[in-house]
Amino acid sequence: MKLRAALEGNDADLQEFLQEYHASEIAILFEKLTPEERKQIINILPTDIASEVLSEMDEEHHPEQILIDLHPEKRSEIIEELDYDDATDIISQLDEDDQQEVLGDIDQEDASNIRALMTYEEDTAGGLMNTDVIKLNIGLYKNEALSEVIRQSEEKEEFYTIYAVNDNDILQGIVSLKDIIKSRANVSVSALLKTDYVFVKADMDQEEVAKLISQYNLTSIPVVDDQMRLLGRITVDDIIDVLEEENTEDILKISGVSEDEELSGNWQDAVKSRLPWLIINLATAFLAASVIRHFDPTLQKLTVMSAYMTIIAGMGGNAATQALAVTVRRISLSDLTDQQAFRTVLKEFSVGLINGACNGLIVFLVALWYDANPMLGVVLFLAMTGNLIVAGLTGASIPLLLKRLGIDPAVASSIIITTFTDCIGFLLPLYLATKLLL
Amino acid sequence: MKLRAALEGNDADLQEFLQEYHASEIAILFEKLTPEERKQIINILPTDIASEVLSEMDEEHHPEQILIDLHPEKRSEIIEELDYDDATDIISQLDEDDQQEVLGDIDQEDASNIRALMTYEEDTAGGLMNTDVIKLNIGLYKNEALSEVIRQSEEKEEFYTIYAVNDNDILQGIVSLKDIIKSRANVSVSALLKTDYVFVKADMDQEEVAKLISQYNLTSIPVVDDQMRLLGRITVDDIIDVLEEENTEDILKISGVSEDEELSGNWQDAVKSRLPWLIINLATAFLAASVIRHFDPTLQKLTVMSAYMTIIAGMGGNAATQALAVTVRRISLSDLTDQQAFRTVLKEFSVGLINGACNGLIVFLVALWYDANPMLGVVLFLAMTGNLIVAGLTGASIPLLLKRLGIDPAVASSIIITTFTDCIGFLLPLYLATKLLL
Repeated sequence: MKLRAALEGNDADLQEFLQEYHASEIAILFEKLTPEERKQIINILPTDIASEVLSEMDEEHHPEQILIDLHPEKRSEIIEELDYDDATDIISQLDEDDQQEVLGDIDQEDASNIRALMTYEEDTAGGLMNTDVIKLNIGLYKNEALSEVIRQSEEKEEFYTIYAVNDNDILQGIVSLKDIIKSRANVSVSALLKTDYVFVKADMDQEEVAKLISQYNLTSIPVVDDQMRLLGRITVDDIIDVLEEENTEDILKISGVSEDEELSGNWQDAVKSRLPWLIINLATAFLAASVIRHFDPTLQKLTVMSAYMTIIAGMGGNAATQALAVTVRRISLSDLTDQQAFRTVLKEFSVGLINGACNGLIVFLVALWYDANPMLGVVLFLAMTGNLIVAGLTGASIPLLLKRLGIDPAVASSIIITTFTDCIGFLLPLYLATKLLL
Repeated sequence: MKLRAALEGNDADLQEFLQEYHASEIAILFEKLTPEERKQIINILPTDIASEVLSEMDEEHHPEQILIDLHPEKRSEIIEELDYDDATDIISQLDEDDQQEVLGDIDQEDASNIRALMTYEEDTAGGLMNTDVIKLNIGLYKNEALSEVIRQSEEKEEFYTIYAVNDNDILQGIVSLKDIIKSRANVSVSALLKTDYVFVKADMDQEEVAKLISQYNLTSIPVVDDQMRLLGRITVDDIIDVLEEENTEDILKISGVSEDEELSGNWQDAVKSRLPWLIINLATAFLAASVIRHFDPTLQKLTVMSAYMTIIAGMGGNAATQALAVTVRRISLSDLTDQQAFRTVLKEFSVGLINGACNGLIVFLVALWYDANPMLGVVLFLAMTGNLIVAGLTGASIPLLLKRLGIDPAVASSIIITTFTDCIGFLLPLYLATKLLL
């Protein structure tokens, strides 16, 4: 790795090496470095690149640790260079004392802006927004407006939407730069307003914000308080991170992993996040096992059922996981009406029936050929079909039910659903065998 | 439902009702309507709204069916109003004959643009891009450049980035409108170029494009051919759809559902997508069951093992699903180095060891209390610990291995992984019981 050589060389070598990389690439390199090496690099980078590297780092790689280890002067320079929303995200990860120290060192206006942002919950519109917007008073005329836009956008790379506010900072609408340029000199901003825009309140959940931005194909959305005062704006690139985060949570929860397990966290955290689910599952596994124990006499006479019942229970678990994944994903992309929910359950019933019968037929043929026992085949066919119907019904209806109850449907993880298919998957073949084969 | 009333009333009522809705909301309403009702609404909407509704509809609700059912004149109006990329997406869903008919009716320049876009694979940068970009010749001076931008952006709501090209349409860099406005009259575009931009080739996979846009926080990215000729641009809102699509595929594949099952498709399609996976699993279930059959003599003497072995195999399946979900998600968010991959497997080994020992202890205590058999407890403790270690190792290493082999790691669905935990989950307790309890 060339980086190692550069780190061990002199500052000039390192500087030259780093010039080849974009800030987001350096942020990725950081994942493999020690705290000392990270500090060394941040100290050598120009302030604007250093701040960009920190804002690009994943929360789980702890950019705040790098920040707090820096010389106070360097640190303050970097923070003042950061966008307010990024600075807030990083600083809010520090403990109370460190927060006060860091904020005390920087420019007072910046500090109060960051303090204001820190009052919003991290996963709401307020926690996501940037306060650094381009806004025009509706009373400005063309040339004033134009030079105001240029002045305000001086330090921004891209400026997205221009917001129009009245004297009390109440949002009045949005204006396009193109319309300002094309207008005559005696036209004021108020004449150029577009008023059919979408906005969000600061306390809206970030997932809802993401849905709005994605549904209306927006590049940015204004954030307002209850009096419609303009607080900031959320841009589509922040939303991409939210979507990735929500999707990670979905895939983890459906697999019985606590949603806040860090993907690259250590084993202690992983145990903390997963052991509770496994213990819940162990309890339900005992429930399923008690079904088996109930049929001990049957199993003693028909040991062959030991093997077959695990096939039927296992297949039920897999079919339920399929139905669950499709239903959970569907719910997370759009809300279903009662009628759609009903049709979904009906569909999964049909799928369970057909897939159950097909697999049941195969098991029937195996019992016929291998055990030369047609009645055993019938028992297995019926049990397989029945359990795959249960799998489809529970896999679809439990997440839909949870959603109606206001509970996150992904919590209906495969761990929970397979309790049903395990119990029914043991009960059906053993009960039928007891009745029909003994 | 008010919509029903409006549909049954006269055109004026319906028109008034529809005015309250954004095109993307009408697209959602469409999911619940019959083809006849959809046609009725499209015919009554202004052309620009109608085309937006079609472009907002999910592919799986078949906007192309609405289009082909319309009167040819209305249809051509709508297509000419669509962005080229959206028109291409919809038209390419039609069969060959309908495509020719539809394209034959519209403006010849539009038709040839759409035909050109149809040559790109749907899931590549070329299939995703819009050809309708704002581009300036690097030779233009301030005022020419400014009026050119205004002319080209006339019909666009937002214009994202301005691209600079030479006389042969070869991309030279990007320019910001702000810089043009602030420049002096005698400055040409070539003096304002930013040349450190990110671009993609037309044949790049859409998932790679999404990663780039998300990593560099871009709002748009230019698409070029092998000669660096500017072909079009991809905007961040198109990428949001790609991310949603890729995430759906991940969650489906990991659950053993074919990646192209439509979430709201009918039961026939669902059977087609899931039955093959279930049959593969049935084969592996027979494999696991053959382990049980091998130990028939043990089971006859120790029927209690029937119940306990299902607990151990089931817990292994759940622990493997957890390890799999975390690993697959991690791989899909960023590529792992060999060292990181090794550490991931090591971490899952530790997690399996600890979680296995904890759950094993509980099973040990149950065997002690319920069956009053300490040696049975020891067998179960060892088997549980062993199987959860296997679960962690396979759940992490199989997707990592597949990734190295160039196979999509999500194919290592829980269905495949649980084959291991089922086989080992039956083998370990039965083997140990045979050795230690008989």
